Parts: sequence; C-alpha cells; structure tokens
Amino acid sequence: MSKPAIGVIGMAVMGKNLALNIESRGYEVAIFNRTGAKTEKVVADHPDKKLVPSYNISDFVNSLEKPRRIIMMVKAGKPTDAVIDELLPLLDRGDILIDGGNTFFQDTMQRNARLDKSGINFIGMGVSGGELGALHGPSLMPGGQKAAYDLVAPILQQIAAKTDDGQPCVAYIGPNGAGHYVKMVHNGIEYGDMELIAESYNLMLNLGKLSTTEMAATFNDWNQGELSSYLVEITADILTRKDDLGTGEPIVKKILDAAGNKGTGKWSSQSALELGVPQSLITEAVYARYISTFKEQRVQASSQLPGSKLSVQISNDFTEKIRQALYFSKIMSYAQGFAQMKAASKQYDWELNYGEIANIWREGCIIRAQFLQKITAAYQKDSQLDNLLLDDYFKEICANYQDATREVVAWAVQTGIPVPAMSAAIAYYDSYRAEVLPANLIQAQRDYFGAHTYQRVDRPGTFHYSWYQEQ
Amino acid sequence: MSKPAIGVIGMAVMGKNLALNIESRGYEVAIFNRTGAKTEKVVADHPDKKLVPSYNISDFVNSLEKPRRIIMMVKAGKPTDAVIDELLPLLDRGDILIDGGNTFFQDTMQRNARLDKSGINFIGMGVSGGELGALHGPSLMPGGQKAAYDLVAPILQQIAAKTDDGQPCVAYIGPNGAGHYVKMVHNGIEYGDMELIAESYNLMLNLGKLSTTEMAATFNDWNQGELSSYLVEITADILTRKDDLGTGEPIVKKILDAAGNKGTGKWSSQSALELGVPQSLITEAVYARYISTFKEQRVQASSQLPGSKLSVQISNDFTEKIRQALYFSKIMSYAQGFAQMKAASKQYDWELNYGEIANIWREGCIIRAQFLQKITAAYQKDSQLDNLLLDDYFKEICANYQDATREVVAWAVQTGIPVPAMSAAIAYYDSYRAEVLPANLIQAQRDYFGAHTYQRVDRPGTFHYSWYQEQ
Repeated sequence: MSKPAIGVIGMAVMGKNLALNIESRGYEVAIFNRTGAKTEKVVADHPDKKLVPSYNISDFVNSLEKPRRIIMMVKAGKPTDAVIDELLPLLDRGDILIDGGNTFFQDTMQRNARLDKSGINFIGMGVSGGELGALHGPSLMPGGQKAAYDLVAPILQQIAAKTDDGQPCVAYIGPNGAGHYVKMVHNGIEYGDMELIAESYNLMLNLGKLSTTEMAATFNDWNQGELSSYLVEITADILTRKDDLGTGEPIVKKILDAAGNKGTGKWSSQSALELGVPQSLITEAVYARYISTFKEQRVQASSQLPGSKLSVQISNDFTEKIRQALYFSKIMSYAQGFAQMKAASKQYDWELNYGEIANIWREGCIIRAQFLQKITAAYQKDSQLDNLLLDDYFKEICANYQDATREVVAWAVQTGIPVPAMSAAIAYYDSYRAEVLPANLIQAQRDYFGAHTYQRVDRPGTFHYSWYQEQ
Repeated sequence: MSKPAIGVIGMAVMGKNLALNIESRGYEVAIFNRTGAKTEKVVADHPDKKLVPSYNISDFVNSLEKPRRIIMMVKAGKPTDAVIDELLPLLDRGDILIDGGNTFFQDTMQRNARLDKSGINFIGMGVSGGELGALHGPSLMPGGQKAAYDLVAPILQQIAAKTDDGQPCVAYIGPNGAGHYVKMVHNGIEYGDMELIAESYNLMLNLGKLSTTEMAATFNDWNQGELSSYLVEITADILTRKDDLGTGEPIVKKILDAAGNKGTGKWSSQSALELGVPQSLITEAVYARYISTFKEQRVQASSQLPGSKLSVQISNDFTEKIRQALYFSKIMSYAQGFAQMKAASKQYDWELNYGEIANIWREGCIIRAQFLQKITAAYQKDSQLDNLLLDDYFKEICANYQDATREVVAWAVQTGIPVPAMSAAIAYYDSYRAEVLPANLIQAQRDYFGAHTYQRVDRPGTFHYSWYQEQ
C-alpha cells in the first residue's frame, strides 16, 4: 500500500483548492481539518478525487509517506501555532512542514528556528492568486531550509502557475522568513498598484468627466500595452458591470468608498520604516485606504472645507498623460519595493534573487503583469543593481514619462483631486535624482538643538558647531 | 537629618542637567551613576550645589525620603531594564520610579504593569527640550499612576518650562505608556516641522534663487508672525552662521545633506499604521531623511535620471506663497498627529486631554510655537473634536492658504524640486474633504479577486458580486 506523498491541513477554500490542485497533477493527497464535517464535505463533493481524509491529526500524520510533507492552510497567528503544537510530538526528524498562510515573516523566522531544534524543516510559503489561483495555479514564494525545499519542489513546480514561456511561478526564495517577507512586499506592491489605478480612475472621472463606459474602454486599451496586467484587466471588466440589484447603474457607483485591508500592506510599510528605506508610495496607498474608512468625517468635512479656486487647462491627450503617470508611478513603487527587499536581504542574510522574484510574479498572482519581465531582465544584467531606476529600460521610461506625470499631478493638486500615490512617486523620483537635498539644514537643526553632530561635504569626520557662541 | 525628596540615576548630560534644574528650585537631590567617576565629576564641577552622591545603588536608594521619588535618565531599552532589575529588590511599596528616557511606549506599558504587581509606581515621562531644556525648563509628559503623579507634581511643575502666562509645561498625561506615546508623537511632529522648513528652504533656494542671507531674513520675518516658533527661529539663525573652518561660506553649504534619526519618528509612523490612521506627512518626513542617507546613489542617479523639461511662471509674491504653504502643511501635520493621539487614546484607554497636551508643548520643547494656543483653544471649544481641520480657526486658514499651497506644490512638481511633505499635506486635505473617494473601485477589485465583499451606498449590509458569471 502506497501512502500519500503530501497532505494538506485546513479545508477552508484556500486549503481545499490547493489540495485539489495537487491531486489534479496525479498525487494522492491526505487531508485534515480541525472540524471533521468540513473534511467530509470536501470528500463528498469530490468523490472521484484521490483525497485521503483523516479525522484526527495523528491518523493524518501516520497516513503520510516519510519524510512527511504537510502544507498548513490555516489562519495566521495563534491558530497556526496551535496546529504546530499539536503536530510537533507526532513528527519525525526530516519531516517538512509548510505554512501557506499569510503569516508575518518574523513569526516564520521564529517558528523555523524553534522547529529546527527538533530536526523538523519549516517552510513559510507565500501563496498568491486567491481562490482560483490556489486551484489552477498560484504564485508560490517558499522560504526555509533549502534541502527541504528540494524535496517538495517537484510538487510545487507542478501546481504553480506557468509563465507564457513555461516557467513555473515558484522558486526557492531563501532561508526562514524570506518567502513570507517577499509575499508581504508583493501585497504592499498590490496596494500601490490598486491605489494608482484608483487615482487614475478618479482623474478621468473628475478632471476628464469621462463616463464609466469610456473609462472601461480606456483601461481596456491600456491593458493592450505596457500596462498589460491582471489588475488593469479586471478594472476594465469591473467598469462594464451593471448593478446586480437592478438600479441600471454601473456597480462601481453603488459600492461604498471605504476600503478594507488585511494588514499585509501595513506590515510592508512598517518593515520599510524599520529597515530605513523609503517606501512612500505603498505607505500612501495604505493611508489612502485608512482615510477612505473615515467616510462620515469626510462627508461632514466636504461641506465645511472649501476646495480649490484655481483653474487649469488640461490637454486633449490627458488620458494618455494619465496612462504615462500611472506607469511612471508604478515603476517608482516597484523600485521602492525591490530596494526594500534588497535591504531586508542584507539585514536578515537571505541572499534574495530579485530577477527570480519578478519572474515568479509574472503569473498566478494578483500583481501579474507583462512589465515584470523588464525587472527580471534588469537584474539579469546586474544582479546587485541598487535601484531599478538605474537600469536602462526604466531610465528611459522615466525620461519619457516624467513630464506627463508632472502635468497630471499639477492638474490634480491645482484642482483639488487627491493623488497621494502619484505625488509620492514624483517626489521620490525627484529626491532620488537630487544630488543635493535640503537635509543639510535638518542636520544643522539637529546639531543646534541636540548636539547631534554632522558630516561635511569637503572633508571626512564628525563635526559640531558652537551655535551658542556669538560670532 | 532630612533626606533628599528626590534622586536622579544617570549622570550623562540630560540626567545631570535635570538634577541641577531640580536643585536650583531649592531641593536636595540624590544622584547616582553606574560609573562612579561621572558622579564624582558632577559633584566636583558643582561644589556649591545640594547634590547628595552615592556610589552604590543601595546607598542611593537608602539616601532617599519615603516614598522614594527616583528619576532614571538612562539609555532606553536594555540599560533601562538593567537599572529597574537592580532597583526592584531595594524599593518599597508606594515608591515612585520615573523613566525620563526616550522609551518606546509599549515597553513603558509592560514595565508599568510589571512593577505595579510589586506595588511600585512607574511613570514613563517624555522629556523634551534637549540639554538646555533639561537645565532651564523642559516640557514634561508624564504617564503612569495618577496618585503617584500627584506626589511628584509639585517638583515637576517647578522644573518645567513656563508659558508666557505662567502655566507650567507639565500635566498628567494618562495611565502607563501615555506619556511616552505623546512624546513619540511630539517627536514625529518635530520631524514633520523640520522637513517642511527644509522644503521651504529648498524652494527658496532652487525656485526663487534666494541667497542664504535673503533666506535668513525671510525666516526671521516668518518668525514674527503665525509661524513664530523655535524651529523657524533657529533656522533663521543657522542661515546667518559662517563656516567655523574658515572657508567664508555659510555653514549650511558645508554640512552634508544626509539626515540622521534616533527612531522616534519611525515609531510614530509605525504606530499610526498599526492604529489605522493616516499620518502621511510625518511618514514622508521620515522617508525623506532615509532617502537623504543614500547620498552616493543620489549623486550617481543625478547624472543619469533627467529632470523636468517643463517651465513655470512663479509669481512675485512666491515667498509669501511658500509661507502659506508651510503653515497650511504644518496644520495638516498637527491635524494628523492629534487624530492619531485620539485613536491611541481610544485603543489604550488613556483619556488624553488634547488641549492640555498642546499647552504643554507651548514652551520648553523643540516644537514650541505660538500656534499651539490655537490647538488648545480648539479643544477647549470641543474636547472631542474629531479633527483639527473642523475647528473654525483652522478651517479659515485652510480656506485662505490652500490655493497658495496648490501653486507652490505645482511649481515644485513641474520643475523637479521634491516636496514630499507638502505634497502629502495637500493630498491629505483633498482626501479628508472628499465626499467620495475612488476607494469604491478598490473595494470592487478586492471583491473581484478575493471575494472580500463590499458595502453599498444605498442600503445596509454586506455584498458580493458574481464577477465570474457572464451577464
């Protein structure tokens, strides 16, 4: 009797779909859920699938071939710890436990270290692509012991999404928390992409007075070119959809403008702050969601705080300028995100492969997009590139699209349309390419009130000025 | 023989100056330092002062009147824990331990809870004003047990700075970590103020081509009006100072444009992200310091990334417009900071008094400024005000100064001068006063790819759209 080579714990939709995905590649899959009824339902709903259910966790563990390969798809945080605590006495040295949840990378680092003491391999794996991705092919970002990864790689490569040239959207990311870190940055970038699309929509709506149908067509056009991506594609689709409650209006007009979040964008910004790297675009996207939730205050403020009295002349090609501003700003966001991963890689000793990460994101995940190939190409030319903006392709886009971005942001600022992310994009570009920033004045102030000292432009060393002595 | 009513641990400059400040109000002060030589030097340097040195910590504790009042001025983090661990067995129930360091508020919350179990009162006290403030009158933000605060209040009120109408710049902030939290937000606001001044300077320098002398005069003028504040005052002074190494140039021209930080601005942003409140201006100020540190990359990028090809017509009154933009942006920063404190107060059950906090900041601390009276006045009118922007005074400034801010930001964006904080200010204003934001599109996207559901504008409830069914 052969035993299943892999098992999945957690039969909520993500775990169930991942199990079905694995099964569809020809594997028997052991499955387990804390509440047995869920497992029963999965089996009953899929009678022809090679699923091997267990109704207590030790039966589940014993049902698996050794070394055991177990993917946990349970809620991040305490529920994950609870499952680990139950599993630990049942596992043997060399077994491989994979956490596919949206776990905070530092929790994964700690769990990896803790389980490693018992000889258990622990892989923290980012899984992107939502329910359908899990079923048909997600983007997978596994981090942990390399030797353990190699033992699950054949399965992961089969279930992962494939790029158009046939590469699986999975690769070994790095030790301990590297996989979950990269997934966190992925999600932060997703926040940025979504906010930039929302700002573009808002500009077309309020500056260009375009109809929903016209905007749908515009996003559809954009999806044929450089901006070709899942999020632009679904935006075009969303804008064609009518209210499902029969008002006859577009559904977007009926959806409340208060955006929720699950915390990964926040983590990404908090980590950038911790590492000392600028990640202004994603952070503004997170804050934009926060402001949106203060709907009642905003409605109150809208009648009390006046808008602009300035007027602007927008050009006829303003949608093309918005397209350029969107692409330019997106590039700033990715430049910041990849620079952040580089800082994290150094801090946590992960030796991340940035070109490979961009490659993994090309299919399966929410930020999948054509332009990720350009990022892979940039790191293929220089694997230690400090910043994407210094790569020839991105340099040229910046040179060509910056003025449109400046015009669009200026229009928005002058007419009172909020563009926090696009504003952050141009400020980042102009800061990064500034040979001299006014931080010399900040250093003078810090030395003045706190004797914090400063460096000089013309000689090495640390200096303090006698501010309190009259000259 | 009377015993000193209060003692200070830590004879680095802040501790020494605080001890001397207390002594100058007529108190005997017990002093102690881990390294005895430092204590000896303080005593030797101030032979006529009523300082009572001890050279081991138990002598120090025994030298004090009960209940003991001890102010620790030691490094935040592990050194603070080390001192607490040494003190704990020596203290009696009812003693009061005050941490005057730059401690992370959650550490203070934990220490307060831990010491409370032994009946020891623990006060986390923000101390602002630098060395000179400590000596002559700092701004003090104590949080902890109220009854314990009352026992040290007479001393704290004497040593604190005084407002021009004679009020001491100290008040009970709230339980456990409240004092250190408010100090952290103070420091975040300080980052914002400094960045806004730096951006104003950079605009005058690069857009207006003003000389350092002209800029000094401008800041000096500004200091006579609404912007009257310590930071504007010292900026004017800094710009008059010549290089102390004899090059004949202004010292600012010789200081390297790479700004350091001690982490409190970062904490402030991380907390805002955690609480779900926008704090974009301070965060951009923190990121601006980070970008400044990448000096080598910036120099490299400056020759590779082209700037704007647009030109703008700036008006003759552009310095006045920059002044208005600075004040407008500063108001956005404080509106965000106070809204953040309100969220923290709710989250941690502190019942903060916002008007009193603004009052404490009026003198002694780095952000001391005339306009803080306007904030106190706003909260006197409505102690539960949701946002400063909804107060009449601030509403009027916004109405009057927004267009100048829009023009200044548009000039900067179009000519390639980075103004991340001013950009964040106008984006915040326009978002906060937006009855409708494009977050409806973001919610549609989230529902599309993740079935995250949404609310509607026209009826209560939670909805999900069948995106994958053709209409």
